Formats: sequence, C-alpha cells, structure tokens
Amino acid sequence: MPTLRIALAQVNSTVGDLTGNAATVRAFAARAHEAGAHLVAFPEMMLTGYPIEDLTFRESFVQASKAALAKLAEELAADGLGELAVVVGYLDADGPARLGADSTVRRGPRDSLALLHRGSVAATYDKHHLPNYGVFDEDRYFVPGDTLTVVRAVWADGTAADIALSVCEDIWQPGGPFTAAGAAHAALVVNINASPYERNKDDVRLPLVARRAVEAGAAVAYVNLIGGQDELTFDGDSIIVGPAGELVTRSGQFTEELLVHDLDLPAADPAWTPPGAAAGLSLRLQTLATSWTEPAGDRAVGGVAERLPDEAEVWSALVLGLRDYVEKNRFKSVVVAVSGGIDSAVVAAIAVDALGPKRVVGVSMPSSYSSEHSKSDAADLAERTGLDYRVQPIAPMVDAFLGSLTLTGLAEENLQARVRGVVLMALSNQEGHLVLTTGNKSELAVGYSTLYGDSVGGFNPLKDVPKTLVWQLARWRNTVELGGIAAPIPENSISKPPSAELRPGQLDSDSLPDYELLDAILAGYVDGDLGRDQLIAAGHDVALVDRVIRMTDGAEYKRRQSAPGTKISFKAFGRDRRLPITNRWREGS
Amino acid sequence: MPTLRIALAQVNSTVGDLTGNAATVRAFAARAHEAGAHLVAFPEMMLTGYPIEDLTFRESFVQASKAALAKLAEELAADGLGELAVVVGYLDADGPARLGADSTVRRGPRDSLALLHRGSVAATYDKHHLPNYGVFDEDRYFVPGDTLTVVRAVWADGTAADIALSVCEDIWQPGGPFTAAGAAHAALVVNINASPYERNKDDVRLPLVARRAVEAGAAVAYVNLIGGQDELTFDGDSIIVGPAGELVTRSGQFTEELLVHDLDLPAADPAWTPPGAAAGLSLRLQTLATSWTEPAGDRAVGGVAERLPDEAEVWSALVLGLRDYVEKNRFKSVVVAVSGGIDSAVVAAIAVDALGPKRVVGVSMPSSYSSEHSKSDAADLAERTGLDYRVQPIAPMVDAFLGSLTLTGLAEENLQARVRGVVLMALSNQEGHLVLTTGNKSELAVGYSTLYGDSVGGFNPLKDVPKTLVWQLARWRNTVELGGIAAPIPENSISKPPSAELRPGQLDSDSLPDYELLDAILAGYVDGDLGRDQLIAAGHDVALVDRVIRMTDGAEYKRRQSAPGTKISFKAFGRDRRLPITNRWREGS
Repeated sequence: MPTLRIALAQVNSTVGDLTGNAATVRAFAARAHEAGAHLVAFPEMMLTGYPIEDLTFRESFVQASKAALAKLAEELAADGLGELAVVVGYLDADGPARLGADSTVRRGPRDSLALLHRGSVAATYDKHHLPNYGVFDEDRYFVPGDTLTVVRAVWADGTAADIALSVCEDIWQPGGPFTAAGAAHAALVVNINASPYERNKDDVRLPLVARRAVEAGAAVAYVNLIGGQDELTFDGDSIIVGPAGELVTRSGQFTEELLVHDLDLPAADPAWTPPGAAAGLSLRLQTLATSWTEPAGDRAVGGVAERLPDEAEVWSALVLGLRDYVEKNRFKSVVVAVSGGIDSAVVAAIAVDALGPKRVVGVSMPSSYSSEHSKSDAADLAERTGLDYRVQPIAPMVDAFLGSLTLTGLAEENLQARVRGVVLMALSNQEGHLVLTTGNKSELAVGYSTLYGDSVGGFNPLKDVPKTLVWQLARWRNTVELGGIAAPIPENSISKPPSAELRPGQLDSDSLPDYELLDAILAGYVDGDLGRDQLIAAGHDVALVDRVIRMTDGAEYKRRQSAPGTKISFKAFGRDRRLPITNRWREGS
Repeated sequence: MPTLRIALAQVNSTVGDLTGNAATVRAFAARAHEAGAHLVAFPEMMLTGYPIEDLTFRESFVQASKAALAKLAEELAADGLGELAVVVGYLDADGPARLGADSTVRRGPRDSLALLHRGSVAATYDKHHLPNYGVFDEDRYFVPGDTLTVVRAVWADGTAADIALSVCEDIWQPGGPFTAAGAAHAALVVNINASPYERNKDDVRLPLVARRAVEAGAAVAYVNLIGGQDELTFDGDSIIVGPAGELVTRSGQFTEELLVHDLDLPAADPAWTPPGAAAGLSLRLQTLATSWTEPAGDRAVGGVAERLPDEAEVWSALVLGLRDYVEKNRFKSVVVAVSGGIDSAVVAAIAVDALGPKRVVGVSMPSSYSSEHSKSDAADLAERTGLDYRVQPIAPMVDAFLGSLTLTGLAEENLQARVRGVVLMALSNQEGHLVLTTGNKSELAVGYSTLYGDSVGGFNPLKDVPKTLVWQLARWRNTVELGGIAAPIPENSISKPPSAELRPGQLDSDSLPDYELLDAILAGYVDGDLGRDQLIAAGHDVALVDRVIRMTDGAEYKRRQSAPGTKISFKAFGRDRRLPITNRWREGS
C-alpha cells in the first residue's frame, strides 16, 4: 500500500493573467516540494483564471493558454520540481470555437486539466459535465470530454497507484467520471474546481464529495479556488475524503493555503487493465514512471479547519470580493457616500476591512433634508474606522438645478441623489477612487433607488445582501475585532428607522413593506422563482405579494444598469438572473 | 396532387403578453380563414413572446402558457375557425426546470409547437436543435425534442398530404429534423421562427431554407416574427421555397403581413408508413381528418416582396426596435439631448420616424464651451423634424459644482456631461419621458463617453451602430421622405468634424483614431474575435491595433452599465458579447 503525499494548492488566480497565474503555480509547487509532496493539485482553469467567458472565442487566447502550459512544464523542471506531479487547469482546444457552428461537430475549446511531470505534459483530461445554469454558461463555451484519464503512478520501488482525474461539475453529477473511476478501480480521484461561493455551500459540498467517493470506491481530493472575480467569489474549502466517504482533511475558507496530507492508497495490480469504456466514457490508462519514495519522517496530516460562523462567512466573501475587485483592477482607493444610514456604514466597514482605512474615502453630503443624526452618525463611523472623511454639502448644486428647472415630488427627491452621484464621480475622476455603490438587494429588487443617483458606482458590495442581512452583518461585525478595529458601525446607524432623507420626515416604511416581510417574499420570488400562488400558499399576505411582485418586475430596467457586486446567494441579480425588460407577464394574470 | 392554401402570419408578439398574443393569433387566423387558407402558421413561441429568458424557470408561467394554448384552441373553434389548422409556438414542459438539476434527466421546459384544429391540440412538436451562441441561451432553458411529428392532413375527398413540423434552429443545422422529414417523404416542412435581425441576414436565410428544402426533398414554409424585444429586432422575411429549393413567395421586412399562397403538394400514399426513426429522431405520423376542399376561384399567389436597400434595412430595424421598446413598455414620449452633432441628430430622426415628432422632446444644453453651430444645428434639426424643442443652458449648475469642488481636466470635462444627464433624468421624472442615449458603437467600444453623463438613458438606438455607419445612415435618410419628413438631419451635423465640446476647440480626433480606421479594427476585434496578430496580418497599423485593443478592453466596466439598444450586428455589446471586467489578458502579451 503506497503512501501518496498529496498537496492541494488552494490559491487565487486572476482571469487573463497567464504569467502571474503560472508564477503562483511555481511558488506553490516549490512549497509542495519542500513539504515532500509527490503530487500537487491546483484549481480548475488555474492558468487562465475562471470564468474566462468570451475570451474562449479568441483563438489568440487559446494559443496563449496552450503555450503557457508548455512553458510552465519546462519552468517547473528548471526549478528542480520535475519529479513533482503538478495537476493544473487550463484552456485547450481541438478546433475552432463553435460559436454558431454546426452542433453536430464536437470539436472546439475545452475546460482541461494537465498533469505536468519531468518538464512536459504527461496526461490530460477534458471536463465532461459542463454546467449551464446559475452563473455557469459552460455549454456555450466548451465541448465536453468523453474520456476518463487514469494515471498509474509507479513509485521507484515498483509499487503503483491508480489516480483518476476530473474537473469540478464532474463531481456534482451522478454517473459519468466518478462511476467510470469506480469501474477503473482507481484508488484516488483528483477533482479540480472553480466552485463559486454561495451561502452555506460548504454544508452541501462535503456530503457531495463523500457521496461520490463512495460511488467510486476511491478517495477523493477536491481542490478549489479562492478569490474574487467580478461578481463571483471563490471560497476554497478544499477537502479530502476517504473511499468510505469519511472526511480526512479540509482547508479553511477564503484563504490561500497549501493542504498537505499522506494518503495510503491501495496498490494497483500491475495485471489489471480497466475496461475500455464505462458510464458512457472511454477509459485511458497512462503510466507515470516516477522516482517517488515513501515519505520519510513524520506523517503529513492536513487537519480539519474550523468552519466560519454564518455571518463571518458572508462577511469574508464580501471583503474578499471587494478587495480582489479593487486590487485586480489596480484601483488605489475607493470612495463611498456615508449618509449615517446602515447600508453605507456597512459598505464602509467592508471597505476598511478589505483595504485598510487609509484607502477608503467617506463623503458625507448633507442636503437641507438631512437630519442632525445623519451627519453625526457619519462622523461617528469615520471616527470608529479611521477612514478619510470629508463633508460636502450639496445645497448649492441642488439649488442651481431648482433655479433652472421646475421640479416637484419624485423629480426633486431624485435630484438630490443625482447631485451626490455627480460629486462622487467628480471625486473619482479627480483623485482616482473607485466609487462604491451601497444599495442592498432588497432595494434593488423593488427599485427603491435613484437611477444615476445612489445607484452610481463601479462596484456594490451589498448587491446580493438583503436588508435584514445587512443589519445582521452589522451587529455581528460589531462583536469582533478585525484589523485592530472593533465595533466600526455606529449603534445609532443600526437601530434607527431607515430613511432616504430626500424629503422632510421621509421613512422607508412610507414606500416599502416592513423589511422582514419584504425579504421573505423576495427570497421566494427572486431566489426561488416561486409564483404568486406559491407565495400565498406559503402564508404571505395576498396584497403584499402582489405589491412586491409588481415592484420587482417593474424594476428590471434599473437593475440592467447597476454596478457589479459580490454574489452570495443562489440567484443574484446580474448574470444568473436574466429577465426581459419588456415583459407583460404579471403573476396571477 | 392536393392544393394546400397556406398562410404565414408574420406578426409582432410581446414577451409575457399571453392574452394579447392570443388575440393576435385569433385576428390573423380570421384573416387567413377569410382568404380561404387551410393552414396558418405563426412564429416560434408566439403565445409567450420570445425570448422569455428566466420566465422559463417560473412554474406559474409554464402553467399559464399551457392553459393559454388550450384556451386559444377553444376560442378559435368558437370563432368559427375550427377547420383551419393553426400552427403556433408556445412554452411547454414535461417536468421541472432543470436549473442546476441532474443533467442526466432529460425532462423540463420545451420550446414547443402545437397544431390546433377543431378546438383542441391535434399535434405537437418540440424543438430539437437548441442554439446556445450569440444572443441564444436555449440550452440553458430547454430540453430538446427527440421526435419528428408528421401530420397527414386528409382533405374531404380523401386525398392527403404529409406535413412535417419544425422550429427555427432546426433549419440552421444539417441533419436532424429536415433529414428525418426527407426519410418520412414529407411533402412540406413548416418551420416557425423567432430569428433576430442582423445586417444582411436575409442574404443568408434564403439559400439556407433552399438547401434544407433540397435535403428534405420537400417544400419549406418558413415564418418569422417581426418586432422589437429589448435589444433584439425581428425582421420577418418569411419565405416559402419549393422542393428543388426554388423561391416561391417571400414577405416583406419589418412589417406585419399575412402571406397566402397555394401550394400543390404530392399526395401522400395511404399505404406509406414512415420508418420509426431517422437521423437520430423518432418519427410520429398523425392523421388529421379535415373537411378541406380544393381552393375555389383564383389561385392564391403570395408574390415576392422587394428587399430593402442596406441602409433602409438598418434604419427600419432601429426605428422598429425603438418604437416597440417605447410602446411595449408603455412610455408616452422620449427625450433626447440634441447637441448639434451627428449622433444625437440621427437618434432624434429615428425617434421621430418611430413615434412622430410630437412624442419626441429634444433638449439643447449648451455650456460655455458650446460653439454657435452646436446651438444653430440643434435648432435646425428641431425645425426640420418638428420635435418639441427646448433650450436649457447648464452653466449655472456647472458653476455651482465648480464653486464647491476643485475639478480640473477630465473631471471638469465629465462634469458637464453629468450635469446634462441630471437635467435629462429630471425631465424624465417630471414629465414621464424615456431618456434616449446617443453613444454609438465606436464610442462604446473605446470608452469615449462619460459614465453617468452622456451614457445616461433607458434605451440607445445607436448602441450597435459604428460611427461610420451613423454618417452613412444620416446621408441615406436625407435622401428619402418618411412620414412626411424629408432630410431631417442638418447637413452641417453630417459634415462638421465630430466634437464632444467639453473643452475649447476639442475634437474627437484629439483622442481617437480616424473613424474609418477605428471601425475597421473594431469590426475585426469586437465582431470577429480576431486577435492582435490577425488584425496586423489583415493590414492594420501595429500601433493603432494596440491602442484600439487597449482602449476596448479597458472600457468593459463602462459597457456593463450602459442602456440596452437595438442590435444589428453579429456581435453587439450586451448579452451576446460577454467578457470579464477583471481581465489581465492583453493581446500580444
């Protein structure tokens, strides 16, 4: 029974950064080598980043990915890491992109995995199951692989173990690669992932990996990406389970880690040849001759990292999502309008946790309708966090518009929000900050915001956070100290009734249902695709359901023009919830 | 040889308007009946509109579509149209939406066709080929059909003809339904479509329909939708070809029409039973007993409508796209900033052609940098078109900002555009107009616009129109009289060098390459997915290619927040060109 010292490199890649991503592979491969690992696995599409979307269709990018892979193999060998088996995801293709092409031809780009060894590509595998739901559009971009690759790794002493290779969604679907790996009697299935975070996904992931391990009768090593990519955040949570589905080791969430563990694998019978096909896949057995020896010294034990509490998990996703958006797009700083309200206070706190207070500008922009507590709560936030605080009254600009145009009611209310948007963009242009938007998911859902007003900005950390969760996160954040900052959010911002303060005495409750009721209906209607009758059957008030549906449907045109923001739920506004703007369907009609 | 009098109803449907769309079917079915037709075919997804996107996942909508179909069949019979065979597209499902579901289960929503006769559903067919490229995401929404339905229509005298049914993409792919129809010896294949317009698509469509007819050895009746749906426009161009691929009749472009034609079909041999399967599809033969008799009187001849010249075709798409966006979303009027420049003049002319001058407000918003000709050209445009013209100087508002903030360079330039955006939105809120955006595709590509400034608006007719085509369209429009308006566009707006007029003496050519050169590179890089080396090999200047690529890649974040606008090309910005914002890939790196 050979012992494989396996390393799972839970790292952060960047879309399009072939050079930087290859450098990350080299650095972590060196660490794995120092730890005595035989094999190190990196996430799906490690070399290109994930998701690459329409870069897939650019032939020059496909060629660059293939060239970067070959170069990486050579560099690893030159680094003295040739004996280490390095499993890495990349973009391959065996024909032109099939955009509009004849669907009977199964050639084109592939979501591929390569095993690099001794300076070259020793084995490859093409992802078989291509997800095409939620945030995934892979059936649009890739052709599926039809062959399971099993690598027979042969140690220096002649013992061997069979290792099957697979990619991401392959583990989410019954049948296919894992069943085939079982038929091939593989000892271990390596599964490389770019699996985006959503709330409580870690609770689903472990049972799933365990189930597939049992189906395959093999250990499973699941490695996932971390980091932010536009609206997606990847949470890591890499896992190894044994062939009975038992948890062996598990890495942390939202952190770069190298998880190293010794796995005793059943030795491959040299006489055993897998069948030519199983579970609809061809089987390919490839021998990998190595000079591997049994690990010396102490056994490597990866350990099981503790899971984050729910609020900490969401907070980590929001902080990492914002930090990576800022850093990967090379912004030096952000600016946020601080109104004294809960949304802007939470956004400012997320920004401070992501970037440090010196890189966060908070601007208070009082109007004639702003209350005293708005100004004092904003100042209190600044003091608690240490952000760069400015005050910019908007009355002169608002008055200039009102002097030239006759505006009343909503037009006058929105004017104030739009003047604030102009101020933020002026500061952005003048000083180079990224403008952060602060509208939460509940507001976005029902359109309770001013288009080109408070919706102005390049990134919105709260885009997928319902209002009730905003409060919950604020309360949680005030219970922990992060980066030396305890209780960043003024208590008054949490406890006072929410208001846009665009007219005297205005409260959110003038226009919106109670947020507890609203969020419960939105969870069903937006995240769950429930219809009117189902929502009523679930116990919601009929009139309220009709009102929320009407507001949500009517706000589609606004959402189309909203900034990207970190996704944390099953169905966020943006690319994984797609509705026509022109839509006459009314639930119940 | 029975004669089938067939009618193709090239009509305009609206997404979600089950009641209104059913009413359109009843009205056109009545016209077809009056014209003596035996069978009338309506477009793909006629009852629901197309594309319905995530409405597919709402169980309530699926049920509503099925109920609307059953009700329509009854209503047609009640209208005295029971003997007329009515072919209509709708949404069906034989299981829950497969969002994230097990991909091995082939149950879920279907893009379906029903043949209604004598008050009920006599036959159905589920679309087999599901396009998943460009603007299409059908593999995300639907499961494919696996059975070809052939209807054996039996006339009162016992003669019969075999008619195969198919949907849209089925005709774009070789093999599949058309090959199966050939194996079934069908006399006619009815193909119902929602095929979006793109430039010169009519030149591709006829040869394609002809090719499939020859492959099937059958006449083909191709009916397409017309109308605007958010970014898509459907151009009609319905066609009947004979079994040798010869053009029989063809309807006009962008117009609602009922095309009626007598087709002599080879009689079906009552003894002939098609094979159980062909070309990977099961075959289902269904007999339709009718009381049809040979058409009396003159032969119905549909004729061949003349094709529109290229500029007229694009102009029609832009006018129809805007009109339907405005009407279907129930806006009463639009407002557009008229600067005296070519883009706003063309948008205003499109709006006037779409809605009439009384529903178009044009606002001139001169700043201290605006030239005299800007003001006079805008006034000239107003006079030529008769639109509702206003002048709103922005100096007081700009000065108010400059008095409170220290702004220089780009920040000061953009301020003017943003103040104009606030004025437009204030007029929109106060008076109810939809704001039209005027940035052309070339500007959008390279990011030559002010975010939340001239990019403000709910719909952009020029979103997919390159600058050189804007000029071409302007020159063409001035040669024709439409709606009583000849030469709407001031000659000076066409001939003067383009300028944003945000600083003294500014010209587009200070910041951008010559538009002829720019548009040629963009056609390759954006529409063609060509890489740097391919663009250089095509003869473009190296430095210019690098500059254009850098600008285009860098403007992705701006485009994410741009208004929808009519698509006229193979690859428009928006849902059919999808790139990450965070993207470090640089061509040539």
